[in-house]
Amino acid sequence: MKIIVLGGDGYLGWPTAMHFSDMGHEVMVIDNFAKRQWETEVNVKPLMPIATLHERAKVWERVQGKKIEVKIGDINNHHFLFAAFEKFTPDAVIHYGEQPSAPYSMIDRGHAVYTQVNNVSSTLNVLFAIKKFNPKCHLVKLGTMGEYGTPNIDIEEGFITIEYKGRKDTLPYPKMAGSFYHLTKVHDSHNIHFACRIWGLRSTDLNQGVVYGIDTPQTVLDKELVTSFHYDEFFGTALNRFLAQAVIGFPLTVYGKGGQTRGYLNMVDTLQCVTLAVLNPAKEGEYRVFNQFTELFSVMDLANITKKCGEKMGLKINIEHFPNPRIESEEHYYNPVHTRLPELGLKPHLLSDTLINSMFKRIMEHKDNIDTSVIAPTVKWKMN
Amino acid sequence: MKIIVLGGDGYLGWPTAMHFSDMGHEVMVIDNFAKRQWETEVNVKPLMPIATLHERAKVWERVQGKKIEVKIGDINNHHFLFAAFEKFTPDAVIHYGEQPSAPYSMIDRGHAVYTQVNNVSSTLNVLFAIKKFNPKCHLVKLGTMGEYGTPNIDIEEGFITIEYKGRKDTLPYPKMAGSFYHLTKVHDSHNIHFACRIWGLRSTDLNQGVVYGIDTPQTVLDKELVTSFHYDEFFGTALNRFLAQAVIGFPLTVYGKGGQTRGYLNMVDTLQCVTLAVLNPAKEGEYRVFNQFTELFSVMDLANITKKCGEKMGLKINIEHFPNPRIESEEHYYNPVHTRLPELGLKPHLLSDTLINSMFKRIMEHKDNIDTSVIAPTVKWKMN
Repeated sequence: MKIIVLGGDGYLGWPTAMHFSDMGHEVMVIDNFAKRQWETEVNVKPLMPIATLHERAKVWERVQGKKIEVKIGDINNHHFLFAAFEKFTPDAVIHYGEQPSAPYSMIDRGHAVYTQVNNVSSTLNVLFAIKKFNPKCHLVKLGTMGEYGTPNIDIEEGFITIEYKGRKDTLPYPKMAGSFYHLTKVHDSHNIHFACRIWGLRSTDLNQGVVYGIDTPQTVLDKELVTSFHYDEFFGTALNRFLAQAVIGFPLTVYGKGGQTRGYLNMVDTLQCVTLAVLNPAKEGEYRVFNQFTELFSVMDLANITKKCGEKMGLKINIEHFPNPRIESEEHYYNPVHTRLPELGLKPHLLSDTLINSMFKRIMEHKDNIDTSVIAPTVKWKMN
Repeated sequence: MKIIVLGGDGYLGWPTAMHFSDMGHEVMVIDNFAKRQWETEVNVKPLMPIATLHERAKVWERVQGKKIEVKIGDINNHHFLFAAFEKFTPDAVIHYGEQPSAPYSMIDRGHAVYTQVNNVSSTLNVLFAIKKFNPKCHLVKLGTMGEYGTPNIDIEEGFITIEYKGRKDTLPYPKMAGSFYHLTKVHDSHNIHFACRIWGLRSTDLNQGVVYGIDTPQTVLDKELVTSFHYDEFFGTALNRFLAQAVIGFPLTVYGKGGQTRGYLNMVDTLQCVTLAVLNPAKEGEYRVFNQFTELFSVMDLANITKKCGEKMGLKINIEHFPNPRIESEEHYYNPVHTRLPELGLKPHLLSDTLINSMFKRIMEHKDNIDTSVIAPTVKWKMN
C-alpha cells in the first residue's frame, strides 16, 4: 500500500513511518518541523538528540535497505498538500500532523487560537485533498480519549445508542474535552464525520489514550533512528515524565489528588492499532471510532508503579502532590469501552516491570541531558 | 446596561442594536462589513438598499434621539476587539459576528476553511476578551438549531440526561450539523462551554431556528433604518426566499421532497428572545442553551402557505421540486423542545396570513430590485 504519514517527524509519526516501511509498504512522511519550533519556543528538548528527518530517512535506507520519501511543508498550505496527494496517490493517510500539547494550547490566547486554527484547518485540507485526488483513500486520524472527558456513564466508541422517551437513535457520543487542544480533536471529529456523510469518504478516528514508551523494533536499530521522547511539562506524557523525574531525583509531579484515571498504551501498541486500522479500512462513507488504549491507570497508580520499580533499582523517589494546574475531576467514574481494536486482533503489551526497567535504563543513559527546569508545571488552565 | 452587538450591520444585528437602544441601553455595534464583501463576491444584494452603518446610526440618532456607538473592525484582530472591550466595558455581548451562510461555506475548500477559521477564532477572541476585561460580562451567542441535525429522538435544549447501563449523566446533546457553517456553531458551543467550565464565564447559547421577516418597530421608522433582507440562495432563508420568488413569478424552489422540518421564528421574536436572555443572564460559570424558535414547519408547509396567501393576492404561484443541493433527510422525525424562553416570558408572534401579506407588500414595493439570476441553487454539498 501507499501510505502518507502526516506529522512523520514526531514521537509517534516517525516510528509509524519506519514500521510501515519495514512491512514493505511505500511510505511518504510529511512534516514542517512545527513541533521542533514549538520545542524551541518553550525551551524544551527531547531526551535524545534527534537527527533531521532527511538524515533519519537516509539512515533508515542504509540500515534497512528501504526508502521513506520525505516531503517538508505545511499541510495548512493546501497547494503543498494537494501536490503531495496528486503525486503520491496514497491508499491511506495516517494523520498525526497536529499541535499535540494541551499545556501548549493553554499558554494564552495566541496559543489557543493558533492550536485550533492549525489543527482544524489542516484536517479540513486533508479531507479536501482526499475528496479531490483519492476519494477511496482511507483517513486514519489520531483523535484522543480526552474528547470524551470523564462522564458518569460508560464511554462507548464514538457513538452511543440513546433510548429516550420511548424512541431510540445512535448518535455521536457527547464530548466534554478538557483543553483548547483536546477541543480541536472534537472539532476534527465533527468535521470528518460530516465529510464521510456527504462525500462518502472513509475514515477511522483513533481516540487514543496516553502513550508511553521509548523504543520500537525499528527505533533501536540505530541511534539516529530514535524517536522524540519528552519528559517536560509540554510534550511529556504522564508515565514518561515520572520515569525521567525518578531518574534525576525530582519528586514525581502528581497534579492534585492523582485520582485522574485515563486509558494508556505502549507506543508499540500505537503502531499495532494504526496497522490494524490501515489493513482493515473503513467502508465507503463510514466514519468509525476506535478507543485506542489497553489499560486504565490513575495518576497515583503510575506514580506508585514508578516508585516501586525505581526503588528496586536503587532510586530514591518521593511523590509530591502539586496544585493541579488543570481543571479536571480528580476523582471520578471512568469506564470506557475498548473492544473494536481487540476484535481486529490487537494483542496488548501491558505495562510490566520489565518495560519500566528497560525505560529506566534508557533514560539513565541520557540522564545528563535532562533539564530539571522544565519539569514543574507552569501553564495554568485558569491562565491567571 | 452596556451592550455590544457583534455583527451589528447584519440582518439581525442592526435591528437588535436599535431595539436595545430604544429600550434605553447603551449600545455599541461592531462590524467589519465582511458580509457586504461576501455579498459582492457572490454577486447578491439585499432587497432594499442599505445605508452604511455610520449613516444608519446617524439617522437613528436623528429619528429617535438616541446614540448607537459604531466601531468598525475585525473581531479576528484581537487588538481591535480588546481595545473595544477595555473602553466600553460591556455587561453583555450579543454575538452575531460570524459568517452565517451554509451555502457560502460549501462553495469550495477555501470557503469552508475561511468560514471555520473566521467563526471559531473570532469567538475564541471574544471569550478571551471577556475573561481579560469583564469576566462577569454575559455572552449571548447565536448558535443554530442546525447543530443538532435531525436525530430520531427528541431534541433537548443543549444538554440531555442519558440513562445508560444503570448509570446516569447530563451531557452535551450530540451534534450532527449539516454544513461546514453549521459545524462552526458546534465548535463554538464546545469552546464556549469549556470557557464557562474553566474560567467561570457566563454564556447563553441561543440555538436559533430559521428567521423570517422584514420589519421591526424600529426598522420602519425611516427608510434608511431598514435591515438587510435577502432572497438569494446564499443569505436568504426559506420563507423569505419563497415570498420573493412568488412576487416575481419564479417557481418556489423546494429542495427535494420538502419534508425537511425545522424550527422557525419571526425576526421580532429574535429580538424578544435575545432581550430575555440579556435581562435574565446566565449565572457565573453557567453555560446554558435555549432552543430559539416558535413553531415547526416543513419546507412544503411554507411553500403551501406562500402559495395560498399569494394566490389570494392575485399572484400565480407554482411549486417546483429542485434536485436537493444539500445532503439531508427529506422525511424525518423532528421534535425539539423549546420551553426555556417561554418560561422567561416569550410571547410568540406566530406566522399569520397578516404577516405574510405585509411581507408580500413590502417585497412588491421593491420588486424591481429582485435579481432572478440569484434564486436557483448553485452550490451543491457534493461539491462536484
